[in-house]
Order: sequence, then structure tokens, then C-alpha cells
Amino acid sequence: MSAPRLGSIESGGTKFVCLVGSAPDRIEAEIRFPTGEPGPTLARAIDFFRKAAAETGPLDAIGIASFGPLELRPGHAKFGRLAATPKPGWSGADIAGPVAAALNVPVGIDTDVNGAALGEGRWGAARGLDTYVYLTVGTGIGGGAVIGGEVVRGLVHTEMGHLAVPRVAGDAFPGSCPFHGDCWEGLAGGEAMHARWGTPAEELTGDALREALRLEAAYLAAGLRNIVYTTAPQRIVIGGGVAELPGLFPLLSAELTSALAGYPGLAEHSAGDFVVPARLGRLAGPAGGLVLAARAAAAARRRPSGTGPSGGRDA
Amino acid sequence: MSAPRLGSIESGGTKFVCLVGSAPDRIEAEIRFPTGEPGPTLARAIDFFRKAAAETGPLDAIGIASFGPLELRPGHAKFGRLAATPKPGWSGADIAGPVAAALNVPVGIDTDVNGAALGEGRWGAARGLDTYVYLTVGTGIGGGAVIGGEVVRGLVHTEMGHLAVPRVAGDAFPGSCPFHGDCWEGLAGGEAMHARWGTPAEELTGDALREALRLEAAYLAAGLRNIVYTTAPQRIVIGGGVAELPGLFPLLSAELTSALAGYPGLAEHSAGDFVVPARLGRLAGPAGGLVLAARAAAAARRRPSGTGPSGGRDA
Repeated sequence: MSAPRLGSIESGGTKFVCLVGSAPDRIEAEIRFPTGEPGPTLARAIDFFRKAAAETGPLDAIGIASFGPLELRPGHAKFGRLAATPKPGWSGADIAGPVAAALNVPVGIDTDVNGAALGEGRWGAARGLDTYVYLTVGTGIGGGAVIGGEVVRGLVHTEMGHLAVPRVAGDAFPGSCPFHGDCWEGLAGGEAMHARWGTPAEELTGDALREALRLEAAYLAAGLRNIVYTTAPQRIVIGGGVAELPGLFPLLSAELTSALAGYPGLAEHSAGDFVVPARLGRLAGPAGGLVLAARAAAAARRRPSGTGPSGGRDA
Repeated sequence: MSAPRLGSIESGGTKFVCLVGSAPDRIEAEIRFPTGEPGPTLARAIDFFRKAAAETGPLDAIGIASFGPLELRPGHAKFGRLAATPKPGWSGADIAGPVAAALNVPVGIDTDVNGAALGEGRWGAARGLDTYVYLTVGTGIGGGAVIGGEVVRGLVHTEMGHLAVPRVAGDAFPGSCPFHGDCWEGLAGGEAMHARWGTPAEELTGDALREALRLEAAYLAAGLRNIVYTTAPQRIVIGGGVAELPGLFPLLSAELTSALAGYPGLAEHSAGDFVVPARLGRLAGPAGGLVLAARAAAAARRRPSGTGPSGGRDA
């Protein structure tokens, strides 16, 4: 069988990335544009794929890794739609439906972090593992868990950024989350760091950077501990701008070992390959779209009807 | 096909429960005895099943729901053995191996909470759901997550009792966990309640009970919030002695709604059937053993060799 021709959409709150290809290093065509109103934005994406199909042949499927919150329960009337979001015009918007209807190909959809988790599992830092967590620590914090090869989705997708974590002693920063105040993201996301230190994290230097990293590692470790105890991952992969701060990972590994306090006493939790940087960088989301597209194509081959949006599960 | 004849062992730190049957309401034979040294204790269980098989016919499989921590990674050299445990004589003890070897039937094994989770899913409060969490709040706190029909196990089984949760303002109790001090179990398990209030929780009355319930509901809700955001369950089922305190569930549901703070804004999280009491009571663990046995029997039918201990996965 020749390599599939897949389309991928990373639907972000600020920009859309659309590409055609079969892997992050096999991309035939790509377009990026700012996220506007839903109608024209999706039309621009659809137009890109129409032209790609006309020029180089039909696509097998399209995968969408989208900002959320998304309705992803199979068979739900609002499947593939955004729930309430602060992004103007996008609350309730149907993302998967118009793409599937206009292009008449199988469409898979999941959240951007779940997509990135699948991308890192297929081509990145979680390759070969079936139970792992991908975390992005950027402006906010988001996490996707893959367990037994499948993305965790139950009543809703995971919302790891909003974990409750204990405060580090002496820290009086009120937190930046509009819902919870001092949740994990509210204490340790990039926006929280900016508000706490009065400057973006990537502009900190010297003692200020050291102090910020110390606190950040302690808070990230508290959340990682909760992820370890609830989902038992073989590895945790972390991407996003905050994860690129120099010197963060060794501190984080030490803080996690301290937070686990010898329980359940596995050497693997303190090993250098347990908490690792993401490998795909800004391609994690688009790569996730390709995995979702491949899964949608495979699911469609097993279905009589063929097209229409699906959740991108293998089963 | 006639009903299977299954054996179940609930291997607890204080007692063993062994039974033969096919469902919690179809039990042919049962024995309970205190947990002693591993050798004689397992011999007593094996003897019970041998007699049952001799008297009423061979067993199809045996399932073991055991106290932990257990090594459950398929193919691991120590599969089916206990890891380090404070229980004298049991560190490193092989639980599944001797049973399989002596009785020559397929043996499935998992932790007691994972077993109880499977039992509640098959016959109890999580019937019909494929993504849910079972929690026991007794002396300690333990939780098992079932996602997409499978128990969550990655590098190790889950250890939800040791979640990090923020302190309720004004609470200075140091916590009772020997590893973490003020983890979830250290703040909200039955042993913690006893130490905090100077009397076992079930003996509290009047204002003391009201105050204890208020604090307990707040702490339990913080941990449930972390479980909701990491595993997205359709329902959370809670068993154990603390869960039987009168009036706890309505308080807990209200505290969870408050802890989620409208995010992600699903009505289901505040509904009366989201956090519910366990239904099987003390039969949850033994029922879990029956599910593990049925899964081991099914797995053996798909394997050439037939017997030997397995993790009880369906796949």
C-alpha cells in the first residue's frame, strides 16, 4: 500500500496550521493563517485542502487537533463542536462537520493536547510507549493521557491544567486562572509566571530566573505527582514555551522524586527518561492531526458509510 | 455454554476471602480466614479450591484481588508478586504463581481496588459504564480507574490515595501518611480522621460529626477534582467505611461542584448520579476476583498454553 495522503488541521485560538502529508518529515503542502470567525476560517482551511486534492490527488482523511473545550462523546448531537469558549464567535461552533461535509473524506478530531500526545507517541519522545502523558506548559497548562494506546476521554477530555495542588510554603501569589484562581495552571502556567514575576518567564535572567525555576519546578512536580498517581504513565513528555526555560528539567526531576517521597518506590520514576522534553516542538499538533487522520481513515475502512467525523479511536 | 465455575480470592492485609461461584449472588462455597505468613495462608486458600473442585467439579479460572503494591507489568520477572510492603513476611511474596501452579488453572490478578472497580462495573454502581473510577475511603484511600473498559495500569497500578491536595484554610493537622504526611489519604483517610478528631469517625455524633463531615467532604472533593481532570470519568463510585458516614454524599457533591468552579461546565458533574455510594459493599473485592477470573479464563481460551497467571485484561 502506498503512503496515505493525509490532511491535518491544527486549530488554535490564534492561528490555524493546515498541511498535507504522511509524517512530520513528509509534508507536501502547508499553510498558516490567523484564526478569525469560524465560517471564513474553516472555509480557508477547506479551500487549501480542495486545491491540494485538485493539484496532487485526493486525500484519504483529515485529522483536526483543536483548541477546546470540545464535545467528543461518540454519537453526541454536538460531537465535534466547541463548548463554551472565551474565543469570540467560536462557542458552539462546529469544527469537524463542515470539513467532513465540504471535502467528503473521513475526519478525525480531538483536542490539541491529545493530538500532540498522539504525535509525540508516533514520531516523538513517547515513541514505542502505550501509556504516557503529554503536557504542554505554555501560556496555560494542558495535558493528554494515552493509556493502552488510546487517548483518555470519558465524559469529557482531560483538563489537567486545572488540577488542585498545594501551595509552596510562603507563596502568596493569588493565581491567574479565571475559574479556580490558584489551580495548577493558575500557579504555574506562563501567564501566571508573567504575573508573578512582572515579566515574561523567557526574559528572566540570573537570580530572578533561578528563583522562578525553583518555584516552577516545585509546582510542576506537584501536578506531575498527581498525574503519576492517577494515570501511572511510563513517561511524561513536556512541551510548550515554559518547558524550554534552561535548566528546568533537572530541577523538575529532582522535585518529582522528592514529591513522590519513595512511594511506590520505583526507580523508573527518578530515571532520566521519565520526565522528558517534547521532541516535535511546534509540529506536535500538526503531527497529531496526521495521526488522527490516519485513525479516521482506518476507522472508515471498517465502517460501511465511510465518511463523516469520528473521534479517531483505533477500536 | 453453562455458567463458568470461577474461584475468587480477596487477598487482604488482615484477612483472606475465598469463594467459588459465578456472580455475587451465585456463590457456591466461601471461606474467610486471617492473613498469616504467605506460605500457610496461600496453602489454606489452595486447599479450599482443591476441595471445592473435588466435591463439585473443576474450576475454569481463579481471580485474585490483592493488597499491594503489586508488580503487574505483563512479562515482568516479578509479575504477580508483592513489592515492598509493611506487612511482615509479604514483601516480594508471589501471590499468583503458587495458586496457578498448585491448581493448574488460569489465574488473573490485580489490586484489591482495581478488582472492586471491576466488580462495581459488572454488578454494582458503575454497571453499563466503560469509564469510571472506584474509590475506597476506609482506613486509607485507594482508587482504581477503568477507562474504555480496561483497568488503568501503566508503569504501575494507580495510587490515588497519595494525591497532593491543597489544605483547607485553617487546618493544621500534620497528616498521617508515613510517606507524604499530608497527602489525600494522610488528610482524609479513616486513620487520619481518627487521629485528627481523637476518636474513630463512625463514633462521632452531633456537632463533632457535622464539623468532621464538612472538612472530610472538602478534602474528598479536592481529590475527586483531580481525578475528574485527569481521567474524565462518567461516574465516581465510593465505598469503604468513611463513605458510610451519614450525610456525607450530599455534602461531597456540593463541595465537588464548588471545587470544579464551573469548569468545564458540564451539568453531569453536579448531577446526583455522578458521585455515588458503592453497591456491593464487602462483596466488591470478591466480586472483582470473579471478574478477574472470568477474564483470565477468556484470555486462556485465546492462548495456546492455557494456564499461568495473567493480568486479567480483556485484550
